[in-house]
This record gives sequence, structure tokens and C-alpha cells, in this order.
Amino acid sequence: MVGGGEGAFIGAVHRSAARLDNQLELVCGAFSSTAERSRRMGSTLGLDPSRCYSDYQTMLREEASLPPDERMDFVVIVTPNHLHFPIASGALEHGFHVLSDKPATISLEECRELRSRLAASGLIYGLTHPYTAYSMVVEAKQRISAGQLGTIRKVIVEYTQGWLTNSVERSGNAQAAWRLDPRKAGPGGCIGDIGVHAFNLAEFVTGIRVQELCADLNRTVDGRTLDDDGSVLLHFNNGAHGVLLASQICVGEENNLSLRVYGDAASIEWRQQEPSSLWLKYSNRPTELIRDGGAQLSTAARYYSRLPAGHPEGYIEAFANLYRNFAAQVRAFPNGRDHGGAVAHVPGIAEALRGMAFIETAVLASASERKWHRVPDLD
Amino acid sequence: MVGGGEGAFIGAVHRSAARLDNQLELVCGAFSSTAERSRRMGSTLGLDPSRCYSDYQTMLREEASLPPDERMDFVVIVTPNHLHFPIASGALEHGFHVLSDKPATISLEECRELRSRLAASGLIYGLTHPYTAYSMVVEAKQRISAGQLGTIRKVIVEYTQGWLTNSVERSGNAQAAWRLDPRKAGPGGCIGDIGVHAFNLAEFVTGIRVQELCADLNRTVDGRTLDDDGSVLLHFNNGAHGVLLASQICVGEENNLSLRVYGDAASIEWRQQEPSSLWLKYSNRPTELIRDGGAQLSTAARYYSRLPAGHPEGYIEAFANLYRNFAAQVRAFPNGRDHGGAVAHVPGIAEALRGMAFIETAVLASASERKWHRVPDLD
Amino acid sequence: MVGGGEGAFIGAVHRSAARLDNQLELVCGAFSSTAERSRRMGSTLGLDPSRCYSDYQTMLREEASLPPDERMDFVVIVTPNHLHFPIASGALEHGFHVLSDKPATISLEECRELRSRLAASGLIYGLTHPYTAYSMVVEAKQRISAGQLGTIRKVIVEYTQGWLTNSVERSGNAQAAWRLDPRKAGPGGCIGDIGVHAFNLAEFVTGIRVQELCADLNRTVDGRTLDDDGSVLLHFNNGAHGVLLASQICVGEENNLSLRVYGDAASIEWRQQEPSSLWLKYSNRPTELIRDGGAQLSTAARYYSRLPAGHPEGYIEAFANLYRNFAAQVRAFPNGRDHGGAVAHVPGIAEALRGMAFIETAVLASASERKWHRVPDLD
Amino acid sequence: MVGGGEGAFIGAVHRSAARLDNQLELVCGAFSSTAERSRRMGSTLGLDPSRCYSDYQTMLREEASLPPDERMDFVVIVTPNHLHFPIASGALEHGFHVLSDKPATISLEECRELRSRLAASGLIYGLTHPYTAYSMVVEAKQRISAGQLGTIRKVIVEYTQGWLTNSVERSGNAQAAWRLDPRKAGPGGCIGDIGVHAFNLAEFVTGIRVQELCADLNRTVDGRTLDDDGSVLLHFNNGAHGVLLASQICVGEENNLSLRVYGDAASIEWRQQEPSSLWLKYSNRPTELIRDGGAQLSTAARYYSRLPAGHPEGYIEAFANLYRNFAAQVRAFPNGRDHGGAVAHVPGIAEALRGMAFIETAVLASASERKWHRVPDLD
Repeated sequence: MVGGGEGAFIGAVHRSAARLDNQLELVCGAFSSTAERSRRMGSTLGLDPSRCYSDYQTMLREEASLPPDERMDFVVIVTPNHLHFPIASGALEHGFHVLSDKPATISLEECRELRSRLAASGLIYGLTHPYTAYSMVVEAKQRISAGQLGTIRKVIVEYTQGWLTNSVERSGNAQAAWRLDPRKAGPGGCIGDIGVHAFNLAEFVTGIRVQELCADLNRTVDGRTLDDDGSVLLHFNNGAHGVLLASQICVGEENNLSLRVYGDAASIEWRQQEPSSLWLKYSNRPTELIRDGGAQLSTAARYYSRLPAGHPEGYIEAFANLYRNFAAQVRAFPNGRDHGGAVAHVPGIAEALRGMAFIETAVLASASERKWHRVPDLD
Repeated sequence: MVGGGEGAFIGAVHRSAARLDNQLELVCGAFSSTAERSRRMGSTLGLDPSRCYSDYQTMLREEASLPPDERMDFVVIVTPNHLHFPIASGALEHGFHVLSDKPATISLEECRELRSRLAASGLIYGLTHPYTAYSMVVEAKQRISAGQLGTIRKVIVEYTQGWLTNSVERSGNAQAAWRLDPRKAGPGGCIGDIGVHAFNLAEFVTGIRVQELCADLNRTVDGRTLDDDGSVLLHFNNGAHGVLLASQICVGEENNLSLRVYGDAASIEWRQQEPSSLWLKYSNRPTELIRDGGAQLSTAARYYSRLPAGHPEGYIEAFANLYRNFAAQVRAFPNGRDHGGAVAHVPGIAEALRGMAFIETAVLASASERKWHRVPDLD
Repeated sequence: MVGGGEGAFIGAVHRSAARLDNQLELVCGAFSSTAERSRRMGSTLGLDPSRCYSDYQTMLREEASLPPDERMDFVVIVTPNHLHFPIASGALEHGFHVLSDKPATISLEECRELRSRLAASGLIYGLTHPYTAYSMVVEAKQRISAGQLGTIRKVIVEYTQGWLTNSVERSGNAQAAWRLDPRKAGPGGCIGDIGVHAFNLAEFVTGIRVQELCADLNRTVDGRTLDDDGSVLLHFNNGAHGVLLASQICVGEENNLSLRVYGDAASIEWRQQEPSSLWLKYSNRPTELIRDGGAQLSTAARYYSRLPAGHPEGYIEAFANLYRNFAAQVRAFPNGRDHGGAVAHVPGIAEALRGMAFIETAVLASASERKWHRVPDLD
Repeated sequence: MVGGGEGAFIGAVHRSAARLDNQLELVCGAFSSTAERSRRMGSTLGLDPSRCYSDYQTMLREEASLPPDERMDFVVIVTPNHLHFPIASGALEHGFHVLSDKPATISLEECRELRSRLAASGLIYGLTHPYTAYSMVVEAKQRISAGQLGTIRKVIVEYTQGWLTNSVERSGNAQAAWRLDPRKAGPGGCIGDIGVHAFNLAEFVTGIRVQELCADLNRTVDGRTLDDDGSVLLHFNNGAHGVLLASQICVGEENNLSLRVYGDAASIEWRQQEPSSLWLKYSNRPTELIRDGGAQLSTAARYYSRLPAGHPEGYIEAFANLYRNFAAQVRAFPNGRDHGGAVAHVPGIAEALRGMAFIETAVLASASERKWHRVPDLD
């Protein structure tokens, strides 16, 4: 693991998620920017001190020099965004698979370069969009791909938070500070931090793609150079329209991610803060409440659920699903067996590119007088 | 009453609302396009047959010729949009106050003309935006104007329905047919039918005004010439940003009107389908659920509520509040006493103009390559 | 109308409900205990002063002496409980139908006497249990009687309020004062005020009857002589078990009436504070949300609904349904035509007897060391 | 670990919970009734085959013979109820701490014996009532003990499920089969399986004790010898009244555990299926929604929460809290340091005794003609 030292939020989530299903073990890390703090963190985690490295370069070099059955299997990147690319590149260079936080890089250009290096390496790359690994999100995807909604016409995706309502980045909140610093976060603030999750969720569940967009990104709080709020109109490649809302200045909102997809036959609604419920609405039948662990779930959704209905599963469990799926891919490498099957998806380089294309286009579009801007599609 | 014959929806709501508080009596009408059907409807309603007129022109003429204490006090207009202006103009000409369905006219130009005629007449004009007359909407407005939210930064207003998911206008649904016919509905379909309610609600509650907008209106169902779906980005005159969603092709949605307003200190959320609840959210205190009839309501909100907490009031009650307020204005005419006080608001010609300016600008903006379009403000 | 003067709550609800559907007109009343106050109330309501009577005896006598087409059609009783029987008896004696607030009388004995007099009179008697007239309650009843739940096994009905948390009866709350005074309320406090509504709702919806019960009624607040809280275990005549909770000291609860019925095939859940929703749950299918005005409603439920889905209807509308049904019965008298049809139910003397039997048995059972007590069934 | 082999539900939950916080490691087990199956399970879990024992007796003996720093630290019991006592006794005898599933034993007599042996051993005993380890349950307890509700007057606790609606115990559902077999489950069916959780939750949160009860336990489905449904009236030692509902034949209910506590100043409501929300209601202030990770939480509740607000935590996380607390106690043994502090509670032998007293009294009371039965209190 690179990053995830004291004070970080997502590193601890990664570690809990990795442990949950008893398939993975954290063996080494470069957790912080100093050797001392990295070692202290490693000690807390019960790691061998000799594998708590002062920096990622050392970690990659030293681990690569260990015998194959001792060295780490893959690198987890949980640093600020600007380090994602160099660490991922370094890992691939040293022969390690990569599991990286989003966004993949700080520019689309970097991401294209990452794609090339990945292709050259033949290794595995995963991107942690954990919301796609909630069982009811998988259920929604299954039902849409099975045609239960008919033709998709409208997509409304929202991710609103309130934690940047005030200028906490100037009063010691390290999480806020780097996310609002363009050198560390890249060109997108809110749109790159959570907007890209919403974008990924919408494309993942619907199976259609955003073709062009119109954006209004804002710097609400004085003194910010990156956006903390945004609204984006979407045109999809099947003719559907949509709206993406992302904001971190919506005071009182916690982690309010929701997705609604309207077809010509039915619609679905899902809300992250009540993740075990999926609503299915029709024009001529009563609304159905599909529940995690409940009746008539797809095989795929069952695979993402651990407990009987009514025993809530949450964010760590969704994250753990990604880890389980990634572990299956790594175990199956290079011969492809035991990869977890068709339903064991982990977002990869394709999603990485889509996300970076979205962020860059939204930032560009917001600054433009022109309404619509095409989102590059590189597949 | 003009309009509101058999098969109409909103006419019956008007009549129930007018009756509820025992202050008004329906005395005459031109309910349908034929004398026979108008008389039949009037008979159902228990009216004197001599006051069931074949058309509104006759009604206005005949009623004006009755002695002052026998003639009707005001005209209610519940026809398709294209008749709003001629009927309202005729009524003013004959000395009757007007209470009209929205939108006020089928163009901003017409609405300006209506304003002139109204000013010349010295009479009273009301516009039925009933959502503004829910007690918890009034409570939201009070709290915002009292500064409890701080400076408003973000407004999200949504009005989604599913009843136009299919082309019901071609299979005998008269309500759908005229609403999608530009000759009867005006330039806006969904945006003029429900979008304008959302717009009105947002400006009413927040007290700020939309200064410019960017619109994406769509004709989702084949064969339609008016929009059935739309998303509009908003810039307000205080610098706040916003989004307005209006759609009638969101299959499974009933009458899903909601408003969220985020200030720098707190935020509110209200949903029409659960109208007795108002949510107040903070960054450093627990969320509060304010309830109709409950503790700590403003005097204004109490005025819009009839029952103790926990006894649901609904759409008819909100509509009846508008009628009660309008009746108070009419009773107070011309000397201004007993008008119901400061809280007894009825949307009037100012709101009519704002609504028409919004509809026209949204339609124009949607067809344009340019992103932002200014909403004319005529006050 | 007898009762419903200034300060009363339910009288105003009755009047609004009676007006809503334009079928009834309030023509006379004995609203208060003094002639002066009764006249003042009548004046507020726009009544002919000569028909604002000083007491109900005068009203009955005077109205009976009017020509048949001028006199009132029926008497509405909205007084404290101890007056229900004498007024109803007097009305029947003078040839007037009766629509009475619950509970019907202050003892089962009185209620039996009322039944005899009613039978002798040949007139119509209605009892206002308005919760049975919500459209989704009717829908629940229809589905159960159609067998969709299978055999009923368990019934959980709850009616909790918080308004008697403190001894408001001693600080000027007239509503509380008479409800807690055994001379005016009868033997039951909370159990007779709201417990009987819950009981009626359970028997109405399920179609089964409580055969025996075990009760724990409490006087929570010091100084009260009647119960303000109670829990009752139920055994039904088909072998089902149940629980009835009624309390007025549940601080923070508004008017929290809910019903859950579990069969061996499916179950339903309804909550009065969100009356337009009915939940239908299965063991092997997703839960369904049935909505007022929505798809697949029974004819009966449609009859109790005025508006399209998503336009909330509330307590007054439910109450108005009872009035509409009662009006149909009165119009059809004595020949039985036009009574509104099979679905146009109004609780009558049978429900009155069941309610009084329930209240008396619960009070008796609560004071007993013995667990189970049979509820007399007099049909 | 004893029990938790293939097909078991709760064993896997224990293992995930133990892993989550990286403080515990599963080192040995007697997972099944045959050596072969136990070994197979251990192999799946990555255990040393030599520590996958054929039965618990062997496990205790062999582990006790290992050097102190190699042997297991404590025994987890996740077997059917009738084995809880012999395994716990054996573990104590061999010097191992015990963490046991509920109910502690199959009789109060056995539980008293367990208490004696525990006292003699000086070791630690924990009982897994995981619902007490949800952060918002802890918050509720804190607020009540701080007096925010005033004097408690009414407690309503409910735990309803639908999975025993049909006689699944006769069609291969092993979980159902032993739970409905009095030789394995003890005298209580539903009341011992989930009723005791509800009982424990109510006493834990309120801090008051059930003094006497009146019970109606039922065998709804033909052929059952143990109860599958029950309602229990409660009298608490401070004069409060209450109701406990427990049922496994409520078709369509998942794991519907809820608690409501009404004081004379305020009330709380919590529902397990939405565990991150706690409702606080007042008579003269708006209702508050307290959220996990949100503002103004007690220190204690924060200790039970891992993630920022809006990232759902669920059943495994609550269970993991118990494991973390138990681990702290074990680490602190015998000198008492580092036990996790005052908030790091694990239900122990006192709760075990209360639970068994409740189950036995409820079963006894249900069969009795007498209404009230005293719950023995042994502290």
C-alpha cells in the first residue's frame, strides 16, 4: 500500500475491505511521506518493520527483489491524485499489478500514457469505484441489461456532500487541502473527487455512454481555485438525456449519492445511504422494492451480498467486493482461470479513461460560452 | 368559472378548494365548449340553469348586467392556456376580478398586455400556483427570509411525472392532447405545464431571482412538437447556482415536486408528496424534521394549516388556502381592509410575468448553441 | 349539528368534510352550551340565526316542526361522549337520522338501548370512524377479503399520540379535560378516545373479530382517573393473534395510527400519517408499494380517491368520504336506491356495539388478575 | 471456534467481524460434528490442519497443552444452544475465556451454574448481542443515561421476521430445524432466538429492568412444538410499561428490530434495518435525526463508528465492535489495563442470566391463566 498513513480516511477503508473476506493480507507499505511515520503506521498494522518503506520507489525496488512467493502480489495506491500515475507506472515497471484510487491520473493525457504502459506490461489494473460493487447496484445493472426498463431515456445521477461548506482547507483539514489544490488534485475539484464517481455509476449501471455534456462548475467558497459544486447536462450515445449533480457545499448532505434511470417501460432508483433497497417503478403496476438478500435477485447481485435480508451491509462491504473481485483476477493471472466469473467486475483502465475524459471535458465545458462539448471516447 | 367541464381534472379541484372554507360559492359557469354540455355540468353542480352559459363572452355580459349584489364576484379560468388571456381580458373589461390557472398566457408579450389592462382596470388578478400554499412551503419561505439558511448558494428544484411516458395524447387523453398542442398550450410543453410551477416555487421560497439560464428541453416521445422533458441550469441574481428538472416521461413518478435550498449556514428540503414535512439540515447540528401542526412553526405557516399535527392535509387544502387568500383580497376590495394580512399571499401578475419570461427563455435557450440566456425581468 | 362550537376541533373537520363534495349543507345547529355562543358560532358559519338553537332539545323540536322540505335531514353529534346517547335517542324520536362521533355511548348497556331504539325507528345511524374511509384502507380490506393475504395469523394495530404527556387537562386544555373526566368520557380514557379507532380499523380491514383480550391500561400522569396509555393482547375468532397499542403519553408522536396484518401468504402495512401508501409484502416476491390513484387499484379504492396519484389527500378527504356515503344512504331512504353501492360503507350500530364491547372489556380486563377476557359479541 | 461449519450463518459473521479491525486471528476450530468436515472447513479458512479438531473436547485439551504464546486466547461458541453450556464450562475448565452466542444456555438453572464456574475460574465471559454494538444504539443509551428523555414511561421493542412463515424446518432448512427443536433450542423458540435480543436491547438502552411480564406465545404453524410468535406485556422496575413483540411468521418482514423509548421529556426511536439513524422526539421542539458519524455524537457513539457520515455501516461492523471490545478485555487480562475503557461494553454473565430469566418466565407465563409473572432478578 502506498499512502493511507495517519489521518487519511480511505486507506483504512481499503485495509478493512481487503481483510473482510480473508483472501488478502497487507504485507508492506509506504504509508507516509517520511520513513519514520511510515514505519509507525506499519507497526500499528502489525507489519514487519523491514517492509515499512520510506517511499514507494524503495518499496517497489525492494519488494521486486524478494523471492516471488514472498513479495507482494499487487500495489494499492491511496495517495493524492498527482501521485497515482507515477506510482502506477513504477509498479507496472517492477512487475506488480495495480489497484488505484480514482481518478486514475491528473489528466487524460497521463491516463492514455498509463494505458500504453499497462498494455505493454500485460499486468492487471483496477480502479476503486466502490459504489459499483453494492449488490443492489449490480442488480440494477442486471435488470437494465436484461431489458426490464426498455429503452433508456433519462438518467439523473447526484452526489452531494456538505463537508466543504466552509473553507476547512485553510483550517487544518488535510483531506480538504489536497483535494482543493490543483497541483495535487488535478484540474477538477468536486467534479474529480465525487463527480467522477457519479459519472462512473451512471455509465456502469446503464451501459450507455455520455457523448456530450454542458457544464456549470462553480467555486462557491471564496479563495478556492478548484470547483466545489457543479451541474452537468448529459447527452448519451443512445439519445437519452441526463443530469449529473455533484456538490460539496450542500450543507447538511452527508454522502448523498443517488441514481435514477428512466426507460420507456420502467425505471429504477437507488440511494447510497440506504444501499440495500432498489426501487423499480412502472406505469401500470405497483412500485416494487427490491431488497438485498431478498427474493428474486439475480445471481450477480447475490454474489455481492453476504448476509440474509435485513442485516444491513454497507460501504466497507461494497469495497470488500471490489477487493474480492480483484483478488480473483490476480489469482487467475496469467492463465485466466478462477477470475471470479463474469459478474466479478472491477473497473479498469477503460473506466479510468472515461473518468478522465469526463473530468477534463466538464472543466473545459464549464469555462466555455458554447453549450455542448463532446466527451472523447477512446475505445 | 370558465372551463372545468366533464373530463377536466383541475376544475373539480378548484371547486372543492373553493368550498372547503365556506367562504365562496360557485354561482355561474361556462364549463364547456357547447351550451348543452355546460348546462349539464352546471346542473350536476346544482347551479341555476340560467347561469350556466354557453360561452364565456355570454357569461361575462350577462353577469355584468345583473345587479351588483347578485352577479359573480370574480371569474375563475380553468381552460387550456390559449384562452387564459382573452378570458382574463374580457373579465377585466366587464369589471370582474380574475383568478387564473397557470401559465398566465401563451406568450410573454400577451402577459405584458395583460399587465397593462390589469393596471388600467384597478382590479385583482390571481394565479393558481397552489404549491406555494402548502403550510410547510410557507414555513420554508419564512425561515429563509429570516436568514436561518444564511446566504443561499444552491437551489435544486424538480418536478417529475410519468404520465406522458407513452403517446397517450393520440389515444384519447384530452388532458394530454391540448397540453402537447402548441396552439393551445403555447410554446412550452412540460416546461410550461409543470416546469413553471417548479420555477415559481423556487423563486417564491428563496426570494431570489433567476437571472440567466441554460436549457435542454426534449421531445422524447416520437411525434411530439412540444417538449415532454427538460433540464435547466440556473444562475440567480445573488450569485447562487441552481438546477431545475421537469419531466413528464419519468415513468413511475407521480407528482414528484421537490425543492432543496442550500445556504452557507443551513439547508431545507421539501417534497410535495409528503407535504407535511420540512427538513432543516445543518453542518454542526442534527437534522430537524419540522412538521405541519407541530412545534415552533411560524405564524405564517400556522395560517396555512387547519388540523393538529399528524392529520394529513393535501393538495386540495393547499389549493383552498389560495382561494381563502384570494377571497380575502376580493372582500377587501377596493379599500384594502381584511385582505388576510401579510401572510395571505396569492401569486399575481408579477409571478405571471416571471413565469412567462421563464418559459420563453427556456424554449429559446434550448434551441440555441449559446450556453447562457438572460431571463427578462420586468419589475 | 350538535356541538362543534368555538375551541372544538372535530366539529370544524365535520363541517369541512360535509362541504367538500357539494352534497350537503349545514342548515342548523346547537353548537354550544349557551344560546349566545351557539348563535355566535352559527353566525360565523353563515346560518340563519333562527336555526342556531340554544340546546339540542330545542333544535330537535323546532326542526321537526318545520315542513319536511325545509327541516334538516339528519343530526350530526360532535359533543363529548356522555351526550351521544341522549342526543341520538332524541333525534331518532323526532324522526331524524343520526351521524355520531365515536364512541357511540358511554356504556355497552346504553349502546344496546340505542340499538333497540334505532331498530324501532327504522332510521339510519352512522358512526364516524374516518380512518376506515381512506382509500388505501379500503384497498387493504378489498385485498384481504379477496384472499391475497391467505389466512390471517397476526394483527398489529397501533395508535400513539403524545399530546397528553403532561397534565394539560389541568391547565386549560378543554379537549383534554373532558376526555379525562369519567363523567363525560365514560369508563375509557385513551382506550375509548383512540383505542377504539384502532380496534375498529383492525376489525374493518381484516373482517375477523376479537374474541378475547388481555389488557394493561395505565394512568401514567399523576392525578388522572382514566387511562392515558394501554396495551392489549388480542385473540381473534379465526385463531389469529394480535396486539393493540394505544397511548397518548408517547411524547413526540403525532397521530401515529398504523395497521399491519400478516397472513400465511402475504402481509399489508398502512400508516395514517402517510395515508396514500399501502405496502404489500410477500415471502417470495419483492414488496409492492400500492399508491392512491395508482395502477391496479380496486374499484372500491378508486371510489374513495378524488385526485390523480401524487396529489396527497388527507384526513378531511377521508372524513368527506364518510359524509358522501352517509349522504347517499340518506338520499336513498327509505327505498334503498342510490345508496352509493356496496363499497359506500359507513360504520353503523354494529360497529358501535363492537366498540363499546371492546372498551368495556379492556377496562375490566385491565383491572383483573385473570389474563383473558371474552369480548361480548351481540350480532 | 466451536461450530460455524458449512451451511451455518452466524459463524461466518463472527469470522468477518473478528477480522475487520485486524486485532484477532482465528487459529483453530472444531467447526462440525465430524472430523472430516471440520478439517475441510478449516482448510477453507486457511488454518493449520493440526488445529482443525474433530470435536470441542479435543480442541480444548490440545490447545491447553500448547505453550501459552501459541495456544488460542479464547473460545468462540457458535453452536446450537444446547451445547453452549458444556462448551463454555469446558473452556473455563481448561483456562480459556469464552465468547458465546445467545442464549447463554438452555435453562436459567444451567446459567446459574455457569455463573458459579465463571466466578471460580476468574476468566472472562462475553455474550454476543450484537445489536447493542451499533453506534446509534450506544448513542441512545448515552442520551437516556444523561437524562435527556426524563423519566422513562413506555418502552416498545419489536423484532419481527418472516422466514418461519412456512414449515421450512421440515424441508431441509437446518437453521430452522434446530431452532424449533426443544432439545437443541431449549424451551423458547422465537422468544429464545430473537425475543431475547429484543429484551436485551430494551434493558441495555434504557437501564431499567423488566420486573414482571404477561406473555402470549404461539405455535402458529402446525406441527411446531416451540413458539414461532409472541407478544409480551412488560412492567419495569421504575414503573414504566412496555410491550415486546417477537415473531418469525410475519411474512415479508426481514430482520425488523426496532426500539422506541418514551420518557416524560422526550423519546427515541431506532430501527435496525436503517441503523445509522436515531430519532429524537420532543413535545415542544422539532424532531431531530441523529446520524452515525454526524454532529454532536457522544464520545461513546463515536467509538462505535468507523466512517464519516453517509457511508453506511451495518451488521458486520456492529458485530466487529463487540469483538474489538472483547479483544480489549482479553488483552487487559488479568491486570485490567487497556480494556477499551468505559464505553467498550460486552454483554456478559449478568446479561446471560437476565436473558435466560426472561425466556423461562415468558414461556411459563404464556401457559398460565394468571396475568402477571415476576422475572427473577439475581444480581
